[in-house]
Amino acid sequence: MIGLPGTKGERQLEDLRREVLEANLELVARGLVLYTFGNVSGIDRRRGLVGIKPSGVPYERMKASDIVITDLEGRIVDGEMRPSSDLKTHLVLYKEFSDIGGVVHTHSMFATGWAQAGRPIPAFGTTHADYFHGPVPVTEALTDEEIQGDYVLNTGVAICRRFRTLDPMATPAVLVAGHAPFCWGATPDEAVHTAVVLEFVAQMAALTATLNPENPGVSQALLDRHYFRKHGAAATYGQN
Amino acid sequence: MIGLPGTKGERQLEDLRREVLEANLELVARGLVLYTFGNVSGIDRRRGLVGIKPSGVPYERMKASDIVITDLEGRIVDGEMRPSSDLKTHLVLYKEFSDIGGVVHTHSMFATGWAQAGRPIPAFGTTHADYFHGPVPVTEALTDEEIQGDYVLNTGVAICRRFRTLDPMATPAVLVAGHAPFCWGATPDEAVHTAVVLEFVAQMAALTATLNPENPGVSQALLDRHYFRKHGAAATYGQN
Amino acid sequence: MIGLPGTKGERQLEDLRREVLEANLELVARGLVLYTFGNVSGIDRRRGLVGIKPSGVPYERMKASDIVITDLEGRIVDGEMRPSSDLKTHLVLYKEFSDIGGVVHTHSMFATGWAQAGRPIPAFGTTHADYFHGPVPVTEALTDEEIQGDYVLNTGVAICRRFRTLDPMATPAVLVAGHAPFCWGATPDEAVHTAVVLEFVAQMAALTATLNPENPGVSQALLDRHYFRKHGAAATYGQN
Amino acid sequence: MIGLPGTKGERQLEDLRREVLEANLELVARGLVLYTFGNVSGIDRRRGLVGIKPSGVPYERMKASDIVITDLEGRIVDGEMRPSSDLKTHLVLYKEFSDIGGVVHTHSMFATGWAQAGRPIPAFGTTHADYFHGPVPVTEALTDEEIQGDYVLNTGVAICRRFRTLDPMATPAVLVAGHAPFCWGATPDEAVHTAVVLEFVAQMAALTATLNPENPGVSQALLDRHYFRKHGAAATYGQN
Repeated sequence: MIGLPGTKGERQLEDLRREVLEANLELVARGLVLYTFGNVSGIDRRRGLVGIKPSGVPYERMKASDIVITDLEGRIVDGEMRPSSDLKTHLVLYKEFSDIGGVVHTHSMFATGWAQAGRPIPAFGTTHADYFHGPVPVTEALTDEEIQGDYVLNTGVAICRRFRTLDPMATPAVLVAGHAPFCWGATPDEAVHTAVVLEFVAQMAALTATLNPENPGVSQALLDRHYFRKHGAAATYGQN
Repeated sequence: MIGLPGTKGERQLEDLRREVLEANLELVARGLVLYTFGNVSGIDRRRGLVGIKPSGVPYERMKASDIVITDLEGRIVDGEMRPSSDLKTHLVLYKEFSDIGGVVHTHSMFATGWAQAGRPIPAFGTTHADYFHGPVPVTEALTDEEIQGDYVLNTGVAICRRFRTLDPMATPAVLVAGHAPFCWGATPDEAVHTAVVLEFVAQMAALTATLNPENPGVSQALLDRHYFRKHGAAATYGQN
Repeated sequence: MIGLPGTKGERQLEDLRREVLEANLELVARGLVLYTFGNVSGIDRRRGLVGIKPSGVPYERMKASDIVITDLEGRIVDGEMRPSSDLKTHLVLYKEFSDIGGVVHTHSMFATGWAQAGRPIPAFGTTHADYFHGPVPVTEALTDEEIQGDYVLNTGVAICRRFRTLDPMATPAVLVAGHAPFCWGATPDEAVHTAVVLEFVAQMAALTATLNPENPGVSQALLDRHYFRKHGAAATYGQN
Repeated sequence: MIGLPGTKGERQLEDLRREVLEANLELVARGLVLYTFGNVSGIDRRRGLVGIKPSGVPYERMKASDIVITDLEGRIVDGEMRPSSDLKTHLVLYKEFSDIGGVVHTHSMFATGWAQAGRPIPAFGTTHADYFHGPVPVTEALTDEEIQGDYVLNTGVAICRRFRTLDPMATPAVLVAGHAPFCWGATPDEAVHTAVVLEFVAQMAALTATLNPENPGVSQALLDRHYFRKHGAAATYGQN
């Protein structure tokens, strides 16, 4: 028990749970998940607590109280259920990418198609450039030892290895080779938004790759122009 | 008449009928059937009775009492209607695959596209590996004699021939060459679940095969890791 | 005026109009038309009268009284509106194919994709064979003279030319090269059913052609087995 | 303030706003936009005023009063919000194409797939010819200087450069290379109609290009026949 009923600590936990629940349900509403596939987590950085979807529970019956609360080592701090089997990957990402507040994993059709093909998604156009400042990268395949060892943790390690020279906030998604995408963002909600756009961009890119297999993608100038239109101090998109 | 009204025998029959009806309607809800395409059956192993969809009846008018009850030789034991024209294939599978309790046949778009192409669906990723412990196999084409003879029965025989060296519980689906998929499971409901995932995996695999035609599929290590995460004594997925 | 109000003649006309209206609306319900694309007609063979969709009228506002009644020469016999601009093609088909009672024209996505490609849809599987006793043929391209002359009529002529050696009841659809499909059947409703299946088969065949470009299609034996399971004196499918 | 409440000037402004709002919402209803992607504008030619979607506002909350009114130099004349970030492209089109009354920009899946591929959409069939009197052209890629300079304005300039020898009313759409389509028409509503058909045609053409990569498209005779069936003094389609 990490907060007495009615205390500030408990209210914060309830907020985290609700935020994580809503982000999980948004995956369903956007058509990104089949059955119990996929999972979203969120982190309360100040307290070092992560809320994550329970394993194998149907979305239509999921309640805020089903969201499992763990610490950054994966120890269950609050909650009755077993956490998502992908928990350890999420935790690696929270530890390594210090600015992220939410992580999403789906097996959405088109992004997973690219992940299975072991190909990064090229920056073929401005839709891509509005969200990703370069191709969406793909990890190396895990070795047999990594798979037979602490597989879920090693999936996270493979992602971080791929990001050694990349800024995770400028490229908030990755394709795990032979598996599926992971996305992240400042909040669980933002990470889901990125997962939805990634799926859209992945479908569009499959079409472009078919129509023009030699296409190298947009110029660096166009990539910069669109990316910085929506991100950073000089952003001009929207009402803020 | 195989059970007096109100007796245990009749209640069991009603349960089988309702289970088979619901599994058939789930095919519609999941978008796997057009018009009267597709059929689901279930078996009561103890009594040796099979319940199956009637032939050519619109799903929207189908009632539990329309489900036809036959024995394992295909003799109608109870019911007013003619059984699905695919009945004999279902019966062969029940006889040969002793652990299955439900069979599904659909002409779902993408799985049928692979069946028509005469290509097995490779295990391109973990979505596949979570359900199928290897490629989804395709039968050999039936000979003219098999087609002109007891065709529906011979379709079942061709499936079993293909499974001589395969475990039907580890690969609960097959593509009949030039025709369409059959799936099975411990219950009719589970068989439908597999049919839905097969369709999803088939679409994803078509994309992967286009993006990377040389892709050999995932490693045996990854296949094992994912398959046994959801199946067998060491399964860790879900709440049980 | 071809029937006094309340007479048998007028009631028959109302029946034809309602049948044609419902078949047109079924195209919308099945997702086969965009805006005012597509049209269905029906014929009263005894009286030599055709009912057809009016030109360019939104489906959501269409009423039975909007259906235009013409004779086989295209003269308007009853109705306030201008008939579909494709009327003359329909009339050629009614004159040449004496067993048909309904004609459908759509620009449905996948069937039109094949028509534009100028390729017949091969009989890749049993879904196809259940409805079409061979490939769905494609017409030759019209000459400039045919296009600049009585174009709509010449479209019908090109279809009939293609069917010189084919039985229109065994192959109840055609792709007009560079244009789109026409389908037909014993009734307008049956013609729409065929148009829906054609679109499904066309999508499936596009997938199969991509996965296995060398695929010659199913054997004649399988084509016969499936086609005659649903058609002709020896049919065994359904409840009749 | 450009019109006193209740005056004719204000009523005209309200009409423009409502027309532009409805056209924007139609994009959503037709499935052409994701999140806040896309934008529609309309022009009051007599007064030289343009109404355009505000930047980054969710469609489900958009009201007529959110539509921003600017002059042809992009100065805000009425409205509380920041206009679409694509405003300057719209303004170039209004200045150069004197007959258009509405402009639409989307990132719709298939049209954008072609734009990203840098390929014009060939006139593969009559569906295309009914709306576009030739291929849907693609602009040249912008130079780094154009991108780093007044990028949004230069996008409009690149479109007009591409139309030097084309009639914008006969080809009411363009693909901006590496970006996405722009469409236009006599009214905002008509421009949206064209955007919907363009997306449909783009999907169909992708299929055709896959099934028959060598396809040169329809003959000039067929292109003319269909285009002039729906356009110009000799049009015969519809009820007018």
